[in-house]
Amino acid sequence: MRFQRLGDAGREIPVVLDETGAARDLRALTPDIDGAFLATGGVARTRTALRDGTLPVLDPAGLRVGAPVARPGLLVCIGLNYSDHAAETGAAPPTEPVVFLKAANTIVGPDDTVLIPRTSTRTDYEVELAVVLGGRARYLATPEDADAVIAGYAVSNDVSERDFQHERGGQWTKGKSCETFNPLGPWLVTPDEAGDPQDLGLRLAVNGQPRQDGTTKNMLFGVRHIIWYLSQFMVLEPGDVVNTGTPAGVAFGANDFPYLSEGDEVTVAIDGLGRQHHRIGRA
Amino acid sequence: MRFQRLGDAGREIPVVLDETGAARDLRALTPDIDGAFLATGGVARTRTALRDGTLPVLDPAGLRVGAPVARPGLLVCIGLNYSDHAAETGAAPPTEPVVFLKAANTIVGPDDTVLIPRTSTRTDYEVELAVVLGGRARYLATPEDADAVIAGYAVSNDVSERDFQHERGGQWTKGKSCETFNPLGPWLVTPDEAGDPQDLGLRLAVNGQPRQDGTTKNMLFGVRHIIWYLSQFMVLEPGDVVNTGTPAGVAFGANDFPYLSEGDEVTVAIDGLGRQHHRIGRA
Repeated sequence: MRFQRLGDAGREIPVVLDETGAARDLRALTPDIDGAFLATGGVARTRTALRDGTLPVLDPAGLRVGAPVARPGLLVCIGLNYSDHAAETGAAPPTEPVVFLKAANTIVGPDDTVLIPRTSTRTDYEVELAVVLGGRARYLATPEDADAVIAGYAVSNDVSERDFQHERGGQWTKGKSCETFNPLGPWLVTPDEAGDPQDLGLRLAVNGQPRQDGTTKNMLFGVRHIIWYLSQFMVLEPGDVVNTGTPAGVAFGANDFPYLSEGDEVTVAIDGLGRQHHRIGRA
Repeated sequence: MRFQRLGDAGREIPVVLDETGAARDLRALTPDIDGAFLATGGVARTRTALRDGTLPVLDPAGLRVGAPVARPGLLVCIGLNYSDHAAETGAAPPTEPVVFLKAANTIVGPDDTVLIPRTSTRTDYEVELAVVLGGRARYLATPEDADAVIAGYAVSNDVSERDFQHERGGQWTKGKSCETFNPLGPWLVTPDEAGDPQDLGLRLAVNGQPRQDGTTKNMLFGVRHIIWYLSQFMVLEPGDVVNTGTPAGVAFGANDFPYLSEGDEVTVAIDGLGRQHHRIGRA
């Protein structure tokens, strides 16, 4: 199934797409698509309601597309998780996952304007497969145990300011947590519909010019390993979001690609998970 | 004023301490002490209600002391912010604030048990002055503008696993985000009562033996500067918490102090902000 949230920021209406692609209003089942919904059988209840035909159609005309889950408690990111991206940045491939946190209030809808921060000169893009948690992950015994806590997948753009990230002292946080820096969606796609998370093509283009064209086959650490690994260091909760790293083609590093400029149009897509289209503005 | 939250985790009752130190139940005014309460005049309403004597006394006997604010969206930390601590870790004093994020679900009550993570060998302590936001901070023009968005202060222990932080690849996140790693409280103290945030003594002892004894006079970057600085890189929201760094005396670095062991008793205090007393357990 594909879940979506439609409407003004902070007032999104939860919907599910039926087999014709029509939006079905979920408000009779839940006030939102969030950790509580995902952890308490909301997906199963939606499946039943869809089968029974009890969910009214919602006309999406004129409605903004929001991020497909409510703001999570944690937005976790994995760095340098594709060998081609590690190589282009001059970094050695990590021997275990590189982990950092990004402010969760960076999450915006897939088509919302992304703002270049004031004083920024090197705002960059990163298409990533996002994993949405549907259960609690604490000291999982094996990577296979991750399956039980994954609610689904979404397209993510882990927008990054490279000067803030690398040239302003210390940790990467400053270059990752700026306002609007994480378009997410359009959909939360359940695992049964997303297929093998290690066999998805990821693409990003700027003004129609291809920049990133990779596949999740090339992750150094796969989704199950990442969730298992994270659970040894922190407690992941339902509704939390994990960005699993980006393939080659970002502006930072060995490429000649320019950084983002005001007015640029960015499209971001992952096989089966939908497509983002956002414009670049200025804070 | 001193705000507090009393009761089982996740079901804390919001209270304010009156001039006799008695707990006054705030539930008639607010369901919780959180960003919404702090951003919408909750402190002023509490002051009026205290003056009018309309708040019933709550007997705190047998009630757990919770963190004094509900779980924030962001728990931001400043690293190496005291010259004596930077020196003991062998790091040069930073030329601008070192910023990292800590999972906000690490926040527990001041007297809750802190769990040494599985496989940990170097769990450490850090007394810190925590700043609680009462307003939104986005591109503040000057450090002085920080005053308008600070709701108050609290005692914080920024518990850290040094192997996870430094020896497991990449960023500090892994050593900072473990379950129960941020005792906070006992109180949220408003600025009028806390006094000058740059003139507070901070102390931490393990099993009665002094380990840290510093003063916020020695911060490299003061509270106002930190909040102003952070607002250039991210949007801080009401209820968010900022740990402002630790003075010398941690186990990591030049000292002979041992790391924390199961059964240790840790006391943490800051002038006027109260005292924590937590036991060390094992996950």
